[in-house]
Amino acid sequence: MIQQMLAVLGRRPGVRVGIGDDAAVLDGDPAWLVAHDMLVEDVHFRWSTHSIADVGHKALAVNLSDIAAIGGRPVAAIVGLASPRGVFGPSEVRELYSAIERLAADTGCTIVGGDISRARETVIGITILGLMAPGVAPVLRTGARPGDAVCVTGPIGGSVAGRMLLARPATRPDAEDAALIHAHRRPSPRLEFGAELARLGATAMLDISDGLALDAERLATASGVRLHLELARVPIADGVARLAHRLGADPAVFASTGGEDYELLVTIDPARISTTAIPLVPVGTVDPGAPGLEITRDGRPVHLTYLGWDHLE
Amino acid sequence: MIQQMLAVLGRRPGVRVGIGDDAAVLDGDPAWLVAHDMLVEDVHFRWSTHSIADVGHKALAVNLSDIAAIGGRPVAAIVGLASPRGVFGPSEVRELYSAIERLAADTGCTIVGGDISRARETVIGITILGLMAPGVAPVLRTGARPGDAVCVTGPIGGSVAGRMLLARPATRPDAEDAALIHAHRRPSPRLEFGAELARLGATAMLDISDGLALDAERLATASGVRLHLELARVPIADGVARLAHRLGADPAVFASTGGEDYELLVTIDPARISTTAIPLVPVGTVDPGAPGLEITRDGRPVHLTYLGWDHLE
Repeated sequence: MIQQMLAVLGRRPGVRVGIGDDAAVLDGDPAWLVAHDMLVEDVHFRWSTHSIADVGHKALAVNLSDIAAIGGRPVAAIVGLASPRGVFGPSEVRELYSAIERLAADTGCTIVGGDISRARETVIGITILGLMAPGVAPVLRTGARPGDAVCVTGPIGGSVAGRMLLARPATRPDAEDAALIHAHRRPSPRLEFGAELARLGATAMLDISDGLALDAERLATASGVRLHLELARVPIADGVARLAHRLGADPAVFASTGGEDYELLVTIDPARISTTAIPLVPVGTVDPGAPGLEITRDGRPVHLTYLGWDHLE
Repeated sequence: MIQQMLAVLGRRPGVRVGIGDDAAVLDGDPAWLVAHDMLVEDVHFRWSTHSIADVGHKALAVNLSDIAAIGGRPVAAIVGLASPRGVFGPSEVRELYSAIERLAADTGCTIVGGDISRARETVIGITILGLMAPGVAPVLRTGARPGDAVCVTGPIGGSVAGRMLLARPATRPDAEDAALIHAHRRPSPRLEFGAELARLGATAMLDISDGLALDAERLATASGVRLHLELARVPIADGVARLAHRLGADPAVFASTGGEDYELLVTIDPARISTTAIPLVPVGTVDPGAPGLEITRDGRPVHLTYLGWDHLE
C-alpha cells in the first residue's frame, strides 16, 4: 500500500523529509517535525483490557515516541476522535482528555485542536508537531554506517508480555506481572533520550514500535547497510523470561519480536557510548556487506520467520 | 463535549491560538497553522454516492478550507486512513492518493506521511499544516467589530442541493443538477480569497462548513458581537431555488442552513470591499447590541429553529 501511495505522491517546496521516517521534517531552522498515528478499537486496544485513560495516554504516547525517534521535542498535538454514540459521555470525554493532558503537560506540548465524529468503533488519530533544538540535525533512519554500534535505550519485551497477560491472566498475578501490564497500557516515550542522542550525533534512530527485529530490518533497509543483531545481548524486561518460558517461547526472540516497547533503536559511533549518561545497551553492529538484517545468538546465525507486527495483517 | 475538553486542557509555550478557531496558530514569524478534519463513512459520505476519488478530494479540501479561513497557504498534509479489509486494494489506494495528490499539487502542498489501519468502516483523518504570509496576521473568528460589513465569497446552497439530489435523484437531471452534485462531491477551498482577505485586513473569517446561519452565529459568539444576516441578500447557487421549491423549502433558508459550501464568511471594513477583485457579496452587518445572530428577510425578523448541521447529532 505504501508503494502505491509513493508512486502517485509528489513533493513541493517546504518539505525536507517526506513519507518513510518516524516523522516528516519541514524546512526551517529549527526544523519542524510532523507525525500521525491512529489507535483503532479492537486493532490497537480493547475496552475489555484498556481504560479510557489508558487509550488516551497511549494515543499520545505513540505519537510522542515518533518525535523522540527523530530527536525533537513535542510542541503541539491535534486529536481526531470518532466513536459510537454512548461511548463518550461528558465524564468519559473528561477522562480521555485528562489522560492526554497529563502526558502533554509532562512532555511540554499543548493540545491545540481536533475533530469529533460518530463512527462504528472508537478511532483516535493524533497528529504531533515537534521542533528540533537549534543547530541539531534530525536523526533519520537512513544514516547508519559500517562501524556504528547498534544500541537500545532500555529493556524490551515488557509490552508484549503485558499484552499476553491481559489476554490470558496469570493465575496468581504478582508485582512483576503488574509492571508488564503497565508497560503495555502506559508506554513511556523516550523524549529526553532521543533529544540527547541527536545532540550526541547518533547516525540513525527509530522507536521500537513493531518489534526490535522488524524495526532493525527497517533501519538496515533505509540506511542501505548490513545490521547485525546479537540476541544474547538484547536486554529483556523483568518477568518477560518467566512468561516466555510459560508460553514455550524463547525469551530473547519473544522480546525481540513483540513490539510496542517504544525504547529507541539507535546507531552511533561506539566511542560516544561512554560519553553519555543514557543507559545505552549495545545489541549489535553495523557491518560491511550486503544490506539487510543478520541475527545471531552467541555468534551463531538465527533465522526468524516472524520479525514483528505488520499493521495490515 | 468541547466544553468538557476545554475544562481539562492547558496551554504551554509555543501556541498563540489553541482550540476554537478554524486552525490553531503556533508561535513564529511567519506563523504556522494546524487543523484536522475527519471524514467518516456513512457520516460524511456514502460509497453509494461518492467515488474513492471524491472522498480523497473532499478529505483534503475540507482541511485546506480551514487554512483558507485563517488566510494562510497550505504547506504539508498528513493522512490517517482506516478501512475494512477489501475496500482499499492497490488500485483503490492509487485512486485515493491520486485524488489527494491532484488537489495537493493544485494548492502547493505535499503529503508528508500518515498512518494506515484496519477498521469497521472507512475513516480518513487529515491534518493540514499551513503558513501565513510574512507580516500578515492570521484572521481569527474573534475580531469582528460593529460597523464591519458581513460578506460571503460566492453563492451558497449548492452542496446541500447536490446532497439532496444524490439522495433523491431528479427524474430528468440536467446540467444544473450535475453542477450541484459536483459542488457537493468536489468542494473548492477558497485559498486565494482567504489569503487576499487577510492581506486586506479582514477582521474575522471562517469557512461555511455547517451552514451560513450556524457559522454566522459562531462568528458572532466568538467575536462577542451582534451579527445581522439579511436573507434577501444571500447569493444562492444556480438551480438551488428550483430544488428548494420542489422540496417545499424557502430557497434562502435552504441555502443558508445547508452547509458544506466552503465559501468564506468574512467581516471587513465596508470601505475595503471595492478595493479588491474578490467577488465579495455583502449579506449583513456587524451592529451594536447584545452578542448573537439576528436574521431578517427584507428587514423583518426571521426566527429559524434549525441553523445548520451539528456533527454530533
